[in-house]
Amino acid sequence: MSTADLGLPVEVPSTALFTDQYEFTMLQAALKAGTADRRSVFELFTRRLPEGRRYGVVAGIGRVLDAVENFRFDDGVLRFLRDRRIVDEPTLRWLSDYRFSGDIWGYPEGEVYFPGSPVLRVEGSFAECVLLETVVLSILNHDSAIAAAASRMSSAAGGRRLIEMGARRTHELAAVASARAAYVGGFDSTSVLAAGFRYGIPTVGTSAHAFTLLHDTERDAFRAQVDSLGRGTTLLVDTYDVAEAVRTAVEVAGPELGAVRIDSGDLLLVAHRVRQQLDELGAHDTKIVVTSDLDEYAIASLAAAPVDAYGVGTQLVTGSGQPTCSMVYKLVARAGSADPGAPLTAVAKKSSGGKLSVGGRKWAARRLDGQGVAEAEVLGTGPVPDALADRQLLVELVKGGEVVAREPLDAARDRHIAARSGLPMSATQLSRGEPVIPTEYRM
Amino acid sequence: MSTADLGLPVEVPSTALFTDQYEFTMLQAALKAGTADRRSVFELFTRRLPEGRRYGVVAGIGRVLDAVENFRFDDGVLRFLRDRRIVDEPTLRWLSDYRFSGDIWGYPEGEVYFPGSPVLRVEGSFAECVLLETVVLSILNHDSAIAAAASRMSSAAGGRRLIEMGARRTHELAAVASARAAYVGGFDSTSVLAAGFRYGIPTVGTSAHAFTLLHDTERDAFRAQVDSLGRGTTLLVDTYDVAEAVRTAVEVAGPELGAVRIDSGDLLLVAHRVRQQLDELGAHDTKIVVTSDLDEYAIASLAAAPVDAYGVGTQLVTGSGQPTCSMVYKLVARAGSADPGAPLTAVAKKSSGGKLSVGGRKWAARRLDGQGVAEAEVLGTGPVPDALADRQLLVELVKGGEVVAREPLDAARDRHIAARSGLPMSATQLSRGEPVIPTEYRM
Repeated sequence: MSTADLGLPVEVPSTALFTDQYEFTMLQAALKAGTADRRSVFELFTRRLPEGRRYGVVAGIGRVLDAVENFRFDDGVLRFLRDRRIVDEPTLRWLSDYRFSGDIWGYPEGEVYFPGSPVLRVEGSFAECVLLETVVLSILNHDSAIAAAASRMSSAAGGRRLIEMGARRTHELAAVASARAAYVGGFDSTSVLAAGFRYGIPTVGTSAHAFTLLHDTERDAFRAQVDSLGRGTTLLVDTYDVAEAVRTAVEVAGPELGAVRIDSGDLLLVAHRVRQQLDELGAHDTKIVVTSDLDEYAIASLAAAPVDAYGVGTQLVTGSGQPTCSMVYKLVARAGSADPGAPLTAVAKKSSGGKLSVGGRKWAARRLDGQGVAEAEVLGTGPVPDALADRQLLVELVKGGEVVAREPLDAARDRHIAARSGLPMSATQLSRGEPVIPTEYRM
Repeated sequence: MSTADLGLPVEVPSTALFTDQYEFTMLQAALKAGTADRRSVFELFTRRLPEGRRYGVVAGIGRVLDAVENFRFDDGVLRFLRDRRIVDEPTLRWLSDYRFSGDIWGYPEGEVYFPGSPVLRVEGSFAECVLLETVVLSILNHDSAIAAAASRMSSAAGGRRLIEMGARRTHELAAVASARAAYVGGFDSTSVLAAGFRYGIPTVGTSAHAFTLLHDTERDAFRAQVDSLGRGTTLLVDTYDVAEAVRTAVEVAGPELGAVRIDSGDLLLVAHRVRQQLDELGAHDTKIVVTSDLDEYAIASLAAAPVDAYGVGTQLVTGSGQPTCSMVYKLVARAGSADPGAPLTAVAKKSSGGKLSVGGRKWAARRLDGQGVAEAEVLGTGPVPDALADRQLLVELVKGGEVVAREPLDAARDRHIAARSGLPMSATQLSRGEPVIPTEYRM
């Protein structure tokens, strides 16, 4: 089976090839050396948050579960690996019935994270775990970057509605994942239909400047739109003159007009003028939607403007200056032999050039102060202290190869709002700062 | 058919849903108003290059052709649009046998572009053209951003080999497109196997720190790797102590060792030391590969270091600070009726907030000076001046709905090198600057 049958603009047969070649060559060498079956623990974490960010947002866990389930080798993939001589015949045989059979624990989707947080912990044989590195990092690095930007924007927007509309400014499938991550981070809807189709996210959209330009007059365009989409539609009022367009819009749709959209100009000024004009025309319930290169700072600057909803594109899908996270996937412990009972030894690359790794299989907990506000991210390798036992962050996601933690996307969205509100108040300051709580190690 | 059958971590049935909802609502309203069949011309262009960039690189044209061919509505998609009440029944009937039947002209892949360059010109009925907006922008905005970064890096690298290895830092399918765009921009190979599978790009990779940590000693790890992958392999030498690792590497593999990889530390200093050590050990032909948060500036700074190849990850797949382009898709001309012979009228949104659009169906040509070096990007709506007739940039990509311009990826890569070398020499300066040639309008 190939994606050619689907009409996708990509053609890849499973998630197994969203993988760096070296995962496969390491597998081959370990199989030959007899070390491939050593029990291993990999952790996915970040050494630092993006510069100036106060917290991270875990997003993409649901997509990771999909990717792990679908990491399979069909004939087409095996033939490719053979024809290109990526790996040898014993390795191909091993891959042909690959199925991840280990355990995965992780931070649940929507949770916040900090430097060192073991966002994902993957355990099994070296062979089965190492192969997952690339695709798992791709998903979490991308989705968490978008969700972090979304979270800042949703803080800045207060209770006002946020529409994700950045599909045109990112890869067409990254766009679908971005809409999903934005929803986790607090957005309300998206423009991109594939995200509605795949994830059930509410979709919105009415018209662009092209629709006005297609018609002989702006009035013709508005009438055509209202005739077809109803008076509750959103009319775009900045193709020519905004004041004239607003007047025409209310004449055509009446005061029941759903909303007007402003996509250019000094939004603060224009929103005030348009609100006043709408009110004078009796269109008190007509909403104002603004869209035009918004980011969290622009949203915050419009807090005092009569704006009902923000549409955010470029800055959302590019992570508002931080388009990726720096999550890594590191071997932190492994057995000294393939014996299933062999004890685990902590391992870590020697620190050099600031690339700190802390060996050992870790637990994670968030310690609260007397008011119930988070005060530290505590990571350790020994027994969990009693005081932190019920504040642990890792949940079981995959058990013996079976996914055990599916949940609706709304659960992740709700979790994010709860997790963010459990942080010190300075977490939602937009200005640059340090992580809002420190990471402590108990080794 | 659904991507669920493929094990992809996304489930979308065709490119038709990589589309903003408003394209469909505009279609519905135009169908009802009788304006949907007006002959229309859309142009895709950018008002400005990313800040400080001197030229843009067109990438993704091949993927656009795939997306247009596969923009179809099967039962699953139509059911979604009906169930979610995105559009009405007449529109669903119209969509059910949608197939783009118009013409597309564009800059060929690998060509350079400047502000205003009509990178793509899409002609047909308003209805059939407007639907393509989102997916076409997604592809070209993403792929061109990556190719632009790749082009700067390939200039900086001189003739040294460049390996794309950023899959883990971007969406898993954006990674495949990034590898493709990087190849167009001058990279030699990629780490991500799906890009080899789908596009035939050479793939490379041998081992990570995890492989060394899996084994009881570094010597065990190197021996396992050489035993399996041969003496020509690349050994990673910075897990513990670099000098000791290099000594062990040559002891294990002999002077036939293919390469060593350095992934941390002061690369300039370390590369010199490692080269000297390798030479002292008689491993004169052993190459040095460096990888560690490289960008075009870091690559340039290593010009005097004994480095044979650069592996670039994060900064490549995030466009080296410019993860997207600001390309837009605008209606520039349309007929006043559905009559096939009706003349086209130029249209444009009123300039406001800097959002300049220039109406009219345009040609584009690159004027050369007496030495054959580009001196201006000339755009016009009237007849093409004789002096520019053979310097026109737009080529026919789709004719009457049929793709007519497939080409191997190497053709785009070669074209890029030729186009870049036809620019004034200051084009490849890494410092920030203005577009290296001006855009002139002949209207």
